[in-house]
Amino acid sequence: MKQNVLSKMGQRTAVPPISWLMQTALTRPKLISLAAGFTDNSTLPVEISRQLLNEILRSPTTGQPALQYGITAGETNLRALTAKHLHKLDLQPLSPSSPSSSIKTKLKTRMKGEDVDEKNYSPERVLITGGSQQLLYLTLEALCDEGDIILVEDPTYFVFLSILQSRGIKARGVKLERDGIDLAHLEKVLERLKKSGELRRVKALYLVTYFQNPTGATTSLAKKSAALKLLKKFGRAAGHPLYLLEDAAYRELSFSGRADLPAGQSEQQLRPATPPTALTLPGAAERVIYTGTYSKPYAPGARVGFGILPEPLFTTVQRIKGNHDFGTANLLQQLLAGALASGLYDKHVAKVQKNYARKARVMKSALAEHFPASVEIWESGGGLYFWARLPKGISAGVKSRVFQTALKNDVLYVPGELCYADDPSRAKPDNEMRISFGSASEENIRKGIARLGKVLKKFV
Amino acid sequence: MKQNVLSKMGQRTAVPPISWLMQTALTRPKLISLAAGFTDNSTLPVEISRQLLNEILRSPTTGQPALQYGITAGETNLRALTAKHLHKLDLQPLSPSSPSSSIKTKLKTRMKGEDVDEKNYSPERVLITGGSQQLLYLTLEALCDEGDIILVEDPTYFVFLSILQSRGIKARGVKLERDGIDLAHLEKVLERLKKSGELRRVKALYLVTYFQNPTGATTSLAKKSAALKLLKKFGRAAGHPLYLLEDAAYRELSFSGRADLPAGQSEQQLRPATPPTALTLPGAAERVIYTGTYSKPYAPGARVGFGILPEPLFTTVQRIKGNHDFGTANLLQQLLAGALASGLYDKHVAKVQKNYARKARVMKSALAEHFPASVEIWESGGGLYFWARLPKGISAGVKSRVFQTALKNDVLYVPGELCYADDPSRAKPDNEMRISFGSASEENIRKGIARLGKVLKKFV
Repeated sequence: MKQNVLSKMGQRTAVPPISWLMQTALTRPKLISLAAGFTDNSTLPVEISRQLLNEILRSPTTGQPALQYGITAGETNLRALTAKHLHKLDLQPLSPSSPSSSIKTKLKTRMKGEDVDEKNYSPERVLITGGSQQLLYLTLEALCDEGDIILVEDPTYFVFLSILQSRGIKARGVKLERDGIDLAHLEKVLERLKKSGELRRVKALYLVTYFQNPTGATTSLAKKSAALKLLKKFGRAAGHPLYLLEDAAYRELSFSGRADLPAGQSEQQLRPATPPTALTLPGAAERVIYTGTYSKPYAPGARVGFGILPEPLFTTVQRIKGNHDFGTANLLQQLLAGALASGLYDKHVAKVQKNYARKARVMKSALAEHFPASVEIWESGGGLYFWARLPKGISAGVKSRVFQTALKNDVLYVPGELCYADDPSRAKPDNEMRISFGSASEENIRKGIARLGKVLKKFV
Repeated sequence: MKQNVLSKMGQRTAVPPISWLMQTALTRPKLISLAAGFTDNSTLPVEISRQLLNEILRSPTTGQPALQYGITAGETNLRALTAKHLHKLDLQPLSPSSPSSSIKTKLKTRMKGEDVDEKNYSPERVLITGGSQQLLYLTLEALCDEGDIILVEDPTYFVFLSILQSRGIKARGVKLERDGIDLAHLEKVLERLKKSGELRRVKALYLVTYFQNPTGATTSLAKKSAALKLLKKFGRAAGHPLYLLEDAAYRELSFSGRADLPAGQSEQQLRPATPPTALTLPGAAERVIYTGTYSKPYAPGARVGFGILPEPLFTTVQRIKGNHDFGTANLLQQLLAGALASGLYDKHVAKVQKNYARKARVMKSALAEHFPASVEIWESGGGLYFWARLPKGISAGVKSRVFQTALKNDVLYVPGELCYADDPSRAKPDNEMRISFGSASEENIRKGIARLGKVLKKFV
């Protein structure tokens, strides 16, 4: 009898939904792609990286370790610098009113009297990975069997959904509002799973907390805190912890970072920075998995990401990573360590933020000019995306006339439907679009939105 | 009821057997480690890499793509260069007698009249990965469910065994001789699996074909050919292909490479190079999975490996890699592409070969001087290891008096028992040791072997 030689996972793993979009972009030179989540070529740190690599490779003393094997968890200096970097982002946020000395007090108040657990920022809890994507993959390997359940935002990051699909993990969607998930709906979903006896299969709630891919939404600290409390409560019924998996990939692409600092203005006068992570919450050390990346703010071609993991996950994920690759390439880790330690990283991020803020403004005014008024636009405070909602009943999906007409008119977006999990409890909305200003030039942003607006006016 | 939150795989994944050995080496500064499979620090291409990276990052035209996302299968230029490189290694081997024009004819004869399938060397079949380790991991994900069976050499590469253990894949050992596996034993193992009804669970035969880790054995082409025929035959009974998974990680670390070329001597006068890969065999395009790496010959810190995969594996592995990391870091891929295209790679490999050949000679004479005559030594024509067999009944295992006394005398080796699969059909031999000359200095090789010899003389 003829049998399929592939594993069940091998047979299950589908074509990535985005791959034909990218293929389409490659084969049509006139096409303006507002689909790709690529970063902007023009801001990539070419000269900075050249200088840093020259320094690392100038002598055998620093060059040889960078070209040798390291330890699986990552280079000691990069782990320490990453811990420090996160600590700075969380506990010394730029704020318009308060001097930095009072920030911990402020945070303390916000946390209702409980102190932030400093051990969440200890280098021993940092795991360096090949981008944050690898951390997500490893975490799901360590946590989930086939048939287990992960709660996700509705909509969410579609490559995360691809991992779930490939590994036979079920996804259940939680409604998303502009400041994060709908807490009442989260509770309802958990209650329903409890009633159906499926709660023990639930392992985590996955949130893309900053300038979310695809909607641009940022989750408030209050919502993170409330979600963590719900997870704790239902974890007791599940018989095991329900983790909060916080994906902060876009965190540093804030439009209101240092880049907005006018000459002569001090940091204290700046607009508030992004909300702190769930790592600042009580009980985070046991329940929060945090993942971040240097790919988006620095360079995707020097793919370095990281995670902060509670036990027993840290140990397990580290072992599995050992089986994947023994640890991320040292040369890239040293490059990032050099960038962080020299301050060149911060300078570069400021430049990147300024660039994306400008491109977002260009797209915003083009949307205002060309899109029909009935299209709802979600504007973000950072990241790479606008989210557009057509009036109900008008599809923007892959097979829709809107999408096909847009393609004929040489403009590409990501149909929002691709960002919804296969969740039998609701139909997938198909009237949305993710529109990216990440890699397109300002001219192409204007042209692309004009083309898209013209198409939409035919159907809306 | 309290439950374990980890996946079955997460719970199963054991501490890597080598990790405490490495930990031991780190905490005892006087210890001479002949255990690590690290490459030699002194030969790492620090200056070459600096030059190449400078060139790549000198202009935005070449620098930006190197720092951007790429495609999952790898950079087009590196895939083409890798295909060409393999073609050269397989079909233009250095040979003492024949002019290069007749080499294909020679190979043709060797293949009993059948021609080499050139499509095995087409860039479209090359997948670039984060070291060959990642290729092995991805391949096992695509091929094997829990409970499936992989045939391995007895002994074999222990991190491969760690992947199998973690993923719940069974290993069955095939006896290893100095020119590769024992073919009669392979047939016997396959027959036994057929009789027990387990043949349909067998997916591949894993062979480390050049200067094997841990024994240094190199598989002859005749054995690869015979093994492939057996796999084809039993594949019919299994109902699906049984793959030959050829791991050529150490292939380029041959002692008889270009490095031996005395001034004025032409390539034609050189000693024969390593045997061709299984890719040269009839039917290879459907049954051979080949994996190689630039880590060992170039730099582990710029972790780039590759695989040649038949369908449906290529497509499946590529999709799974998309979920892992979207593709290996472009900056590293461009570095390797630059090294290959400029010829700096070949020059570097020649230097590395010469260095290891010299260190192997140092270890060989130290072994002759210090080891008891009753210890059987397997000498290799390349790679990083000697394999030593103590007389039967004398254990060199982790808990043995030999190992513990060696440790007390500040010298470390890898107990051979760690390289044997958990195969219930035989007991694990424990009288062997893997001794590496890879990272130790010549002085430490001499000292280490002297110490180890002294210990052995107490017990043998």
